[in-house]
Amino acid sequence: MMRVTDAVARLRESARVLAGSETVELKACLGRVLAGDVVSGIHVPPADNSAMDGYALRVQDWHGPDHALEISQRVTAGTPPQPLLEGTAARIFTGAEIPVGADVVVMQEKCKSDGGSVLIEVMREAGGNIRPKGQDIMRGATVLKSGHRLRAQDLGLIASLGIAQVSVRQRLKVAIISTGAELVEPGEEIRPGQIYNSNRYILEALIEKWGFEVMDFGITPDDPNIISEVMAKASREADAIVTTGGVSVGEEDHVKAVVESLGSIDFWRIAIKPGKPFAFGDVNGTPFLGLPGNPVSALVTALVIARPFLFDCQGIRHADVVPVRQRALFDMKGSGRQVYHRIRTGVDGAEIFKQQSSGALYSTCWGDGLAVQEIDVDIVRGELINVVPYVLFN
Amino acid sequence: MMRVTDAVARLRESARVLAGSETVELKACLGRVLAGDVVSGIHVPPADNSAMDGYALRVQDWHGPDHALEISQRVTAGTPPQPLLEGTAARIFTGAEIPVGADVVVMQEKCKSDGGSVLIEVMREAGGNIRPKGQDIMRGATVLKSGHRLRAQDLGLIASLGIAQVSVRQRLKVAIISTGAELVEPGEEIRPGQIYNSNRYILEALIEKWGFEVMDFGITPDDPNIISEVMAKASREADAIVTTGGVSVGEEDHVKAVVESLGSIDFWRIAIKPGKPFAFGDVNGTPFLGLPGNPVSALVTALVIARPFLFDCQGIRHADVVPVRQRALFDMKGSGRQVYHRIRTGVDGAEIFKQQSSGALYSTCWGDGLAVQEIDVDIVRGELINVVPYVLFN
Repeated sequence: MMRVTDAVARLRESARVLAGSETVELKACLGRVLAGDVVSGIHVPPADNSAMDGYALRVQDWHGPDHALEISQRVTAGTPPQPLLEGTAARIFTGAEIPVGADVVVMQEKCKSDGGSVLIEVMREAGGNIRPKGQDIMRGATVLKSGHRLRAQDLGLIASLGIAQVSVRQRLKVAIISTGAELVEPGEEIRPGQIYNSNRYILEALIEKWGFEVMDFGITPDDPNIISEVMAKASREADAIVTTGGVSVGEEDHVKAVVESLGSIDFWRIAIKPGKPFAFGDVNGTPFLGLPGNPVSALVTALVIARPFLFDCQGIRHADVVPVRQRALFDMKGSGRQVYHRIRTGVDGAEIFKQQSSGALYSTCWGDGLAVQEIDVDIVRGELINVVPYVLFN
Repeated sequence: MMRVTDAVARLRESARVLAGSETVELKACLGRVLAGDVVSGIHVPPADNSAMDGYALRVQDWHGPDHALEISQRVTAGTPPQPLLEGTAARIFTGAEIPVGADVVVMQEKCKSDGGSVLIEVMREAGGNIRPKGQDIMRGATVLKSGHRLRAQDLGLIASLGIAQVSVRQRLKVAIISTGAELVEPGEEIRPGQIYNSNRYILEALIEKWGFEVMDFGITPDDPNIISEVMAKASREADAIVTTGGVSVGEEDHVKAVVESLGSIDFWRIAIKPGKPFAFGDVNGTPFLGLPGNPVSALVTALVIARPFLFDCQGIRHADVVPVRQRALFDMKGSGRQVYHRIRTGVDGAEIFKQQSSGALYSTCWGDGLAVQEIDVDIVRGELINVVPYVLFN
């Protein structure tokens, strides 16, 4: 069996950036992926400015706490100051530009003023309470790199550079196809032997969360002709195709034959639990990922195996998830597979859900993350283990 | 000065759920907040089903590896089985319902079949490879509680119960108001003394990320009449009002007077860095949160102080963020304030950004989280510290 890391590495080797680029208003860029570096055209801040409400002056003009300085101007944020008259002080407010000639700001709490003049009780060194021009960012500096997924603070940073439109990757178009004659949509009537389709909701939500465009091709029955039509359409319209179910070695699986006839399919025996079977190939050149039909297996393989591949196809630079360390509140013998246990973290550590069957989707809702157990390594209560909170997969 | 935990606790004491409820299609429920418990109306799985592709039979009908059993039916997922004829086996596939009378499934790899009959080499105990009815969820069980924020797997779980519509909280309507005459929107021309508005982009992105509805009231000039009009309108249309800037004790701050005239305002001296000043009050009864004008301070107070309050107003049950432990790659003397250092985590631990000025927004983009330094506690290189990755605030 293939190790999880090897499977992911092999998958990612074949990944190429499939999404084009487009220019988008900054306001609509949350979660979007940069298609080029963001370079600053300005200094931030654009000029020396005050870090405090207080008085700006020349250090050399201060002659002790009893020496009054005339207040020669008043500088507020947003108004350009006049050069500072020699021997005077300027009333100044946080964020306001430092007048030419001033080299220090003294906070108002250290001053006494009657409005016309000011007594400065304690002096600071030159540069004190002044935020220098370009302190945050120098003109010409690359502040965010191509492939970066934009967060709230990144939008703020880009805005602070005066940039109103950004070149980002088009959303990766991902076709979702559920296979299985036993599947019924929620809200519909269910007959014996049928089950409600949950994978579709899981996968579409993940694709949405990852910032991709969901292309929903619904449930296909176990009919090779229909599957073939749907697959061909998906390969034309989407950048990647993800299916759930229908890729085991069982006799009832038609997806394999269809994908083989339109492209290629490879069955990977990955040492992962829950998670097998997993299939990878292409439909008319469009990447094809066949996830298992069991909901927990579908979720885990989507997060662990499909996600980094799709992130690469979207052009995201940082697709890796770094586990955190948590104390195990359970014992678990190692096995021949890498196991992703459904756990919940509390102040004492990570508690395991008692029912770890791949059908028990509730285990993933009860908890807040997955504990990663390496092949042939035992988990011992009280020791530190690797845990991935679900939010890290977002 | 007020400790951060005390400030947050005091704020949350005054919080009430302000969002009503509405019924929404399950497909559109990602990130939405349950307005009631989700109770299962069915057993999941609805009937005993096979965990494997193989053969279903009665344990007692097996008489050793050389004893052939007639294959009396073929059960696929989605088709209701017939009761099992005595002394026979049923060909069965993963997910298919167990025929009445069968009490075990043997995986096909342990069987030899010519199509008409089967030899079973190794027998299992009764119940083997059978997923019992209700194993995942029993009818009547509460599977998700009111106030839960729906993730991908939660949508899958709700779908698996056949539920197509969900009662969720209406999105909390949050008015964003930027104050400051020095602010200019990105894309516009900038004059000396002016700076680009970045807080608006940060806050709107956070509000969006949190699943709330952004009501953008733009930038107000330092004019009390205009601020008053805008505030009154926001108080009528929004559930909560968040401003940035304009709440320091400086002479140029009009927000204070306006909020006082329309409701109430309290200045909190919170022992947080970056972060002060912070104001809390109401405008005509609508909660008012006044965040600082410095972008890093605005971001940190939004995440640490405003977020739990707004989550409570939205009706989210779990507003708490639990830090993870990381090794410090820097030394830092403790101070009289709780400090949120901008850090970046690597394999060795958490590295600090050299420029921790509250104006240096780039520090938050460079990194992936905040290190939390408690009051009067030193951070010593090599020791474990509390870190909150930004994603945990989502």
